[in-house]
Amino acid sequence: MNNVKAGVILIGDELLSGRTQDTNLGTIARFLAPLGVEVGEARIIADNKDVIVQTIREFAGRFDYVFTTGGIGPTHDDITADCVAEAFELGISERGDAIEALLERYDMNELNAARRRMARIPDGASLIKNPVSQAPGFQTENVFTLAGVPAIMKSMLADITYRIEGGAEVFSVTVTAENIGEGDAAAALAEIEAAHDGVTIGSYPFFNDDLRGVSFVARARDRAVLKTVEEALKTLVISLTTR
Amino acid sequence: MNNVKAGVILIGDELLSGRTQDTNLGTIARFLAPLGVEVGEARIIADNKDVIVQTIREFAGRFDYVFTTGGIGPTHDDITADCVAEAFELGISERGDAIEALLERYDMNELNAARRRMARIPDGASLIKNPVSQAPGFQTENVFTLAGVPAIMKSMLADITYRIEGGAEVFSVTVTAENIGEGDAAAALAEIEAAHDGVTIGSYPFFNDDLRGVSFVARARDRAVLKTVEEALKTLVISLTTR
Repeated sequence: MNNVKAGVILIGDELLSGRTQDTNLGTIARFLAPLGVEVGEARIIADNKDVIVQTIREFAGRFDYVFTTGGIGPTHDDITADCVAEAFELGISERGDAIEALLERYDMNELNAARRRMARIPDGASLIKNPVSQAPGFQTENVFTLAGVPAIMKSMLADITYRIEGGAEVFSVTVTAENIGEGDAAAALAEIEAAHDGVTIGSYPFFNDDLRGVSFVARARDRAVLKTVEEALKTLVISLTTR
Repeated sequence: MNNVKAGVILIGDELLSGRTQDTNLGTIARFLAPLGVEVGEARIIADNKDVIVQTIREFAGRFDYVFTTGGIGPTHDDITADCVAEAFELGISERGDAIEALLERYDMNELNAARRRMARIPDGASLIKNPVSQAPGFQTENVFTLAGVPAIMKSMLADITYRIEGGAEVFSVTVTAENIGEGDAAAALAEIEAAHDGVTIGSYPFFNDDLRGVSFVARARDRAVLKTVEEALKTLVISLTTR
């Protein structure tokens, strides 16, 4: 049973200031799950060269695949491509195929120095198509460098699927119960998890003005075992709600 | 001019799987900004003891303040309190004042072993009030350990304000322009940033079916300088939209 893991690096001061709500992590996680790849860790880091370089290096060593989002536009705070090059000790220069991609969007007279920066690609990287705004992402070894704007980031994933060698898919089931307390279920949950190899169970309470309850989420690679666990969770919920 | 930084550690498998969208980072960042504290980095990590302990240790050393969210409930996957204790090499045990807090919510006969786990607090920690569901958070040195459920996490921040010694507040202004290209503004943006000490300018394009544009966000501690930069950005936008 493979256990293929990805690390996600979300780059941008705006994510840390609370101005912008990241949604790229969830999009990447849901893209990877059916390919048999789990996200092991995500970091949200500032537009700071040293931190970006160090995080890319650490993650490229720790994870099978790494995804970066953000910082590949035309402005002075867009430094991700240079950071990837530095992390892998590669040169970086303007590339003809990336300029060609930009020319699908811009006339030659619009292709000023700032926009040409978007064609600077680390040596040896493979371009990743951007069907929304054309400025390409790129793959350097096991690191995929993608745009930060969610619609653009998502559109680039189509050109990544075939590059991923995943493991066994992790499936999940959710059993939700209203008006039971998490603490009443805790001991039984731990027992159910311990009794089924390869299963993890999470317990997620929810609260609002009207409603209080818990969602139990079981995850496993073996669908038959997961079905057994789902039944056990349903039985547990019934026993707690009818006492 | 102080430069007080916080690190945020978001704990939970459900955040990495894409099942749950984190919103706690933004809430914490917006809480800290008027106190003069910036979030320097955030990590989203799994319910894994070694990773949690190591991340708390690293962040406690790197940042003035650290916030953890998640993993302080009654179930087997709630291991954050033990991890904080281990990170600081402290003992951990059930505490009377934490049991008292739980008794505001639960009858004594509901206080089973699972719920009593929520009263296990690292030695010497100071409790953080939880006005929503009573199970307390706690402060150990510069680390604040909070709940993961957003409404509960947010309610705990009221009991933290007075514990923070912040620096000079960072203010921001946003100038938004429709139908201009980020690449047309890039060179002028870099010049404006370079000409004003202590100012950072971010450029955030947006796209949808109808609309394309850019938001320029300038941030600085000095409001007068920020006002000058805002005018420069407005002038830039006018020059780009009227050519």
